[in-house]
Amino acid sequence: MTEQNQPPLQRAPIYAKMAVVGCGLMGSSVIRAARDRSAVGEIAVAEINPEHRARIEDLGFADSIHADPAAAVRGADLVVFAVPVMAMGPAMAAAAAGLKPGATVTDVGSVKGAVAEALAANAPADVFVIPGHPVAGTEQSGPAAGFATLFENRWSILTPQPRDDAPYRAAVERLTEFWMALGARVELMDPAHHDLVLAVTSHLPHLIAYNIVGTAADLEEVTQGEVMKYSAGGFRDFTRIAASDPIMWRDVFLTNKDAVLEILGRFTEDLQALSRAIRWGEGDKLQALFTRTREIRLGIVAAGQESADVNFGRDRRG
Amino acid sequence: MTEQNQPPLQRAPIYAKMAVVGCGLMGSSVIRAARDRSAVGEIAVAEINPEHRARIEDLGFADSIHADPAAAVRGADLVVFAVPVMAMGPAMAAAAAGLKPGATVTDVGSVKGAVAEALAANAPADVFVIPGHPVAGTEQSGPAAGFATLFENRWSILTPQPRDDAPYRAAVERLTEFWMALGARVELMDPAHHDLVLAVTSHLPHLIAYNIVGTAADLEEVTQGEVMKYSAGGFRDFTRIAASDPIMWRDVFLTNKDAVLEILGRFTEDLQALSRAIRWGEGDKLQALFTRTREIRLGIVAAGQESADVNFGRDRRG
Repeated sequence: MTEQNQPPLQRAPIYAKMAVVGCGLMGSSVIRAARDRSAVGEIAVAEINPEHRARIEDLGFADSIHADPAAAVRGADLVVFAVPVMAMGPAMAAAAAGLKPGATVTDVGSVKGAVAEALAANAPADVFVIPGHPVAGTEQSGPAAGFATLFENRWSILTPQPRDDAPYRAAVERLTEFWMALGARVELMDPAHHDLVLAVTSHLPHLIAYNIVGTAADLEEVTQGEVMKYSAGGFRDFTRIAASDPIMWRDVFLTNKDAVLEILGRFTEDLQALSRAIRWGEGDKLQALFTRTREIRLGIVAAGQESADVNFGRDRRG
Repeated sequence: MTEQNQPPLQRAPIYAKMAVVGCGLMGSSVIRAARDRSAVGEIAVAEINPEHRARIEDLGFADSIHADPAAAVRGADLVVFAVPVMAMGPAMAAAAAGLKPGATVTDVGSVKGAVAEALAANAPADVFVIPGHPVAGTEQSGPAAGFATLFENRWSILTPQPRDDAPYRAAVERLTEFWMALGARVELMDPAHHDLVLAVTSHLPHLIAYNIVGTAADLEEVTQGEVMKYSAGGFRDFTRIAASDPIMWRDVFLTNKDAVLEILGRFTEDLQALSRAIRWGEGDKLQALFTRTREIRLGIVAAGQESADVNFGRDRRG
C-alpha cells in the first residue's frame, strides 16, 4: 500500500451525507467501511426487501432506513447504487425525484457498459454520474454479510463518462478520495474494456464454477454423498464460488453477454485442444501447459497482485 | 469425528518400520503425521532427487535416507509409494528385491486403476498390495511442503485387491488403523469407481483451472497485469489450483483418460447449454441453475462434507 492510500485517522467527512440504495453484501460493506473510516457524515439506506430493512434496523449502522429510494437520497451528496445490475436503471428512475443537484451518483455493479447507459438514461442532468466497480466480494449475501475491511487493498474501478468539464473532474477526484479512504486503490477505465477484463477475471470463473457444480449434481454414476465426501480434491473451491448470489450473477451474464461469450469461446477452444492432448496421450503438451500456469500463480503471489509487468511466457501451446 | 477416529496418545507403533518411496508433499506429510501420532517406529525414505535428499536431511524427520528404493524398504512392515502415478510401477520394480515377505505395500496416487495394475505387476507374490489414495493436498510441492495435519478429517480411500484370504483382510484392517491414527477416515472402494468419482471431484476441477489460467494468459486484448490486478473477482482461486505439480497432474490425466474424458464431455455439453441460455437471454434458466448450485454448497457446508443423503434437487436444466 502506498502512503497516499493510508487514510488519516481524523478527518472531515468526504461527503456530508451518503445514501446507499440496496443493502446486500456490497451496500452494507460500503456503509460499514465508510463509517469505520469516517468518510461520510450521515448515512441513509433504501432497501426494497422488508426483512432486510428489519435486519438493517437491528444491525444499527444506518441513520435512516427507507423503502423509497427518492426519500433516502434526499439531500445526499453521494448516492451509491448497490442493487443487481439489471435493477440499476429502475432504481435510478425511482430515486431521481429526490436527487440533490450536484450530487455524485455511483454504483458497485460488476458490469459497466450496460449500467453506465442505464444510470445515464434515468438520471437528471444536474447530477454527476460516475459508474464504478470495487473488485471485491464473497459468496455471502444480505445486509449481515458485509464487513468494513472488504475493500482494503482491493482495486476499485471507476468508468467516468466521456466529459471533461472541471466540475465533473472534481467529482471524480472526490469519489476517488472516498474509495481510497475505504482502503481501496482506484483505477479509471473505459466501460467496454472493464467488461472485457472482468469477463476474464471474474465472469468466466463464475460461469465455469456454476457449470461444473451443475454437471456433478446431474451424474448418475456418482452419488451426491460421494461428491461431497471427496470434494477436498479441488471441487470444494468451485462450490464456494458457485454459491454466489443467483440474481446478481444472472444479471451479469445477461448484460455482459458479448464479452462473456467471446471469452467463453476462447476457453472452449483451448479446452478442446487440451481434451485432444489427453485423448492422444500427449504428455509433453500437458506438462508444458501445467508448468506455465504454475508460473502465473507464482507471479500473482510474488506481486501481491500489484505488479503489471510479469512475463507470463506467451508461447502458445500447440 | 467419531470416537473410533480419535488416536490414543500413547500406543505401540502400528508398524515397527515404515519406508516411504518418494518424498514430496504427500510422502513428507505421511512421515510427519505418522511420527506425530507415533503410528510407526523407524522411518526410512527413498528419494531419487539429490537436492530433495539434502533437504530431508536438513528437515531431520527420517531415520535413514536412501537413493535406492530396495535399500529403503529392507525390513519395512509398511511401504508407502508416494511418487507420480506413472512412476509407481518402476518404483515398485526398483524396490521389489528389498521387500520383506508379508510387508504391506500401499501408495498415495490420485488414480487407482492404473496404479493397482502397475503395483501388482511389479510386486513379489509374498507381499500385501493395498492401493490407496488419501484425498488431501495443497498446491505446494517438495519435502518441505508437507505437514502433519494434512490428513486430519479427510477421507483416505483404499482399493483392496479382489482377494478374500484372512491374512490379506488383516493387512487391510491394519492399514485402515494406520490411516485412522493419522486422523483420516477410511473408505474401501473399487478402483474403477474411485477413478470416476475423483474424475469429478478432483481431476476435472484441476483440468478446468489449468485451462482457464492458460486462456487468460493468451489473451491479447487484456494485459497480464490486468489479469493479476483484478484476480480477486474469482480468477485467483483458479490460479491456486493451477499451481499444482505439473508432472503429478500430467500423469493423472494420462492414466485416468477414459473417466476424465467422459466427465469432461458432460461438462462441455452442459457448458454449451449454458452458453446458449446466455446468448438467447434466458435469465430464468440461468437463475435456476445458480440457485441449485448454491444449495449444493450449503449442503456441503452444513454436512461438513460428511452427510451422504443431501438432496441436490436433480431436475435437469433445459
